[in-house]
Amino acid sequence: MDSFTFFNPTKVDFGKDKEKLIGQHLAEHGVRKVLLCFGSERIKRDGLFGAVADSLASHGIQWVECGGIVSNPLISKVRDAITQARAAKVDAILSVGGGSVLDSAKAIAAGVPYNGDVWDLFIGMGTIEAALPIFDILTLAATGSEMNCGAVVTNEATKEKFAIQSPHCYPKVSIVNPELMRTVTRDYLVYSAADVIAHCIEGYFTASGQPRFHSRMVEAIVATVMEATETLLADPADYDARAEFAWASTQALNGLIYEGTSGFSYPNHMIEHSLSALFNVPHGAGLSVVMPAWMKWYHGRNPSQFKRFAQTLFGAATAEEGIAALEAWFTKVGTPTHLSQLGITEADLPATIENVLGNAAYFGVADIYTRDVVATILTSAL
Amino acid sequence: MDSFTFFNPTKVDFGKDKEKLIGQHLAEHGVRKVLLCFGSERIKRDGLFGAVADSLASHGIQWVECGGIVSNPLISKVRDAITQARAAKVDAILSVGGGSVLDSAKAIAAGVPYNGDVWDLFIGMGTIEAALPIFDILTLAATGSEMNCGAVVTNEATKEKFAIQSPHCYPKVSIVNPELMRTVTRDYLVYSAADVIAHCIEGYFTASGQPRFHSRMVEAIVATVMEATETLLADPADYDARAEFAWASTQALNGLIYEGTSGFSYPNHMIEHSLSALFNVPHGAGLSVVMPAWMKWYHGRNPSQFKRFAQTLFGAATAEEGIAALEAWFTKVGTPTHLSQLGITEADLPATIENVLGNAAYFGVADIYTRDVVATILTSAL
Repeated sequence: MDSFTFFNPTKVDFGKDKEKLIGQHLAEHGVRKVLLCFGSERIKRDGLFGAVADSLASHGIQWVECGGIVSNPLISKVRDAITQARAAKVDAILSVGGGSVLDSAKAIAAGVPYNGDVWDLFIGMGTIEAALPIFDILTLAATGSEMNCGAVVTNEATKEKFAIQSPHCYPKVSIVNPELMRTVTRDYLVYSAADVIAHCIEGYFTASGQPRFHSRMVEAIVATVMEATETLLADPADYDARAEFAWASTQALNGLIYEGTSGFSYPNHMIEHSLSALFNVPHGAGLSVVMPAWMKWYHGRNPSQFKRFAQTLFGAATAEEGIAALEAWFTKVGTPTHLSQLGITEADLPATIENVLGNAAYFGVADIYTRDVVATILTSAL
Repeated sequence: MDSFTFFNPTKVDFGKDKEKLIGQHLAEHGVRKVLLCFGSERIKRDGLFGAVADSLASHGIQWVECGGIVSNPLISKVRDAITQARAAKVDAILSVGGGSVLDSAKAIAAGVPYNGDVWDLFIGMGTIEAALPIFDILTLAATGSEMNCGAVVTNEATKEKFAIQSPHCYPKVSIVNPELMRTVTRDYLVYSAADVIAHCIEGYFTASGQPRFHSRMVEAIVATVMEATETLLADPADYDARAEFAWASTQALNGLIYEGTSGFSYPNHMIEHSLSALFNVPHGAGLSVVMPAWMKWYHGRNPSQFKRFAQTLFGAATAEEGIAALEAWFTKVGTPTHLSQLGITEADLPATIENVLGNAAYFGVADIYTRDVVATILTSAL
């Protein structure tokens, strides 16, 4: 096992009605005024905005609205929000939404005290030395952003979907109420499942040193998410399934299954980020397309782990059968497994390959993910 | 799943040579003088004390020695150490040792600022409002104390082994170097395995609401600890097995497998604490005796979970076969399964039962663990 330092200072307040405590949490941290980030106006119709506003008001906390954050969130919006946050002199950022809103909130929080363009922080031209404190109420479980210090944002001008990561970007408090996720559409539920599975398998398959303990934890998360997804497709109101999905999703990317492993990379995310950046496909849908194609190309590099995956999660005998079983499961629950289902055709491949090669350089894996390799994977995903 | 708040602010610095960073960690927290708690003088012979002293000195940190802390640590020693810490005006407590030293360190840290006798904090006569910051270098993986806020200490006058728990008692930094555990004796290795398994199964079997995700995590920890134990018995120098054992041990009692479960209790620990308090048996050895006896009495209350345990961990068909398999495994690795192996006889039962009944009141489970029930369990353990 590799050496590591595990430190995750986020407080997760999990359960029914917990969003009503947001004012209290902010007050305990001495916050007086927040930039309240959200996506669509839906939260104003479904009562969540009202509940948050009531909680803030009852603790004397002011807010400035910053709505309209989209999926695959954009750096232009982050820039505007930084300007807004500085003008309003907020002393914290509050995200009410899913991973896109929260990732934007993190970028805004890091960008406000940064003396320069926030995109610098994504491309290694600047360092995050401080950030406004971040709080969130999660409405979609998928990205794990609620208990990690990373954020992914798209630069629509350069068509780059890049990330920041800094200890300053751990949320102070993340509120996870599974009931708020009851209205997630079937599509986004299964895309989210694909995202969590991707977070699990990246290290599981690519690490040069993967402790068996970590493999077992990964398998526990994947089995739970698959089971909960099927339960929720049958009954979206099943609270316990919603809760297990959410908590497993948090564990998939809070350090637990990565600390102590070594030499891993994120090839599925690397390839998918190009699909999101170029074609604005939902991140999880892109991942369920990329994963089977990548696995078919990659499995010979780590045959014992692929066989373990097949046996443990699908009762299958071989790596190939395990990959086929995962692909069949994606199809069964209704998330795509081919680029054509995303409207991406052979004509789009050259531009896509070019973008992936840029990501490969950014991720430091250009030696493995050459033009030929990327073309092979994407072609098999058509 | 139950509602919960997960917050674990301990930084775990894990890996080879990490003890050399203790001075740096303390300096980063502004510490100038520590009470250096340890057990026997062995750490002075094996070089660990020297490495710690060097690290402290190189950061200008003074220390006062507080050695001689024993297994099943005593409140009298904690009281002496509090006096010593106050006189020396230390501003932090540093534990170098296993769970007994660390639990003592936590009690000392809470006792220094407390205006009264520290035992008050164990019996609900006082509240922990503050504690000196706690740091530790772990030399035995078992109790999970390195990433939780609890501590168990024995009052030798009253023969009570009770606990404190407070957010003020999370270690600031825990250093876990598996190499420091290489010299753990075979006996203490298998006692430690029993302790970790006990931490896992208490909630697993007794919770009224046990999410399947949590069951899977528990099974991952138990399987890892059993596998690593067998590897280490064959080759004590196997670093990866030592590391997996240690990290799994930490995960067994840091909140991960308990948050979200409901209605659980700690009956095996409750009964074992009487064995430790009265007969000073090693905690893990007491647990490997109590567990099979308790399981034989309890399994009818939660048959599906016992069947799951049998199948998942031992490939056994029934609850009874699973219990027998665990007991056989304890015997195989060399930890006792009967009171007689601890030198405890039928003549000792009345006093033991009386002590357990005191614990049952303390744990709030006197309605379940009546005199008859406790007698049944202990008699079957003879």
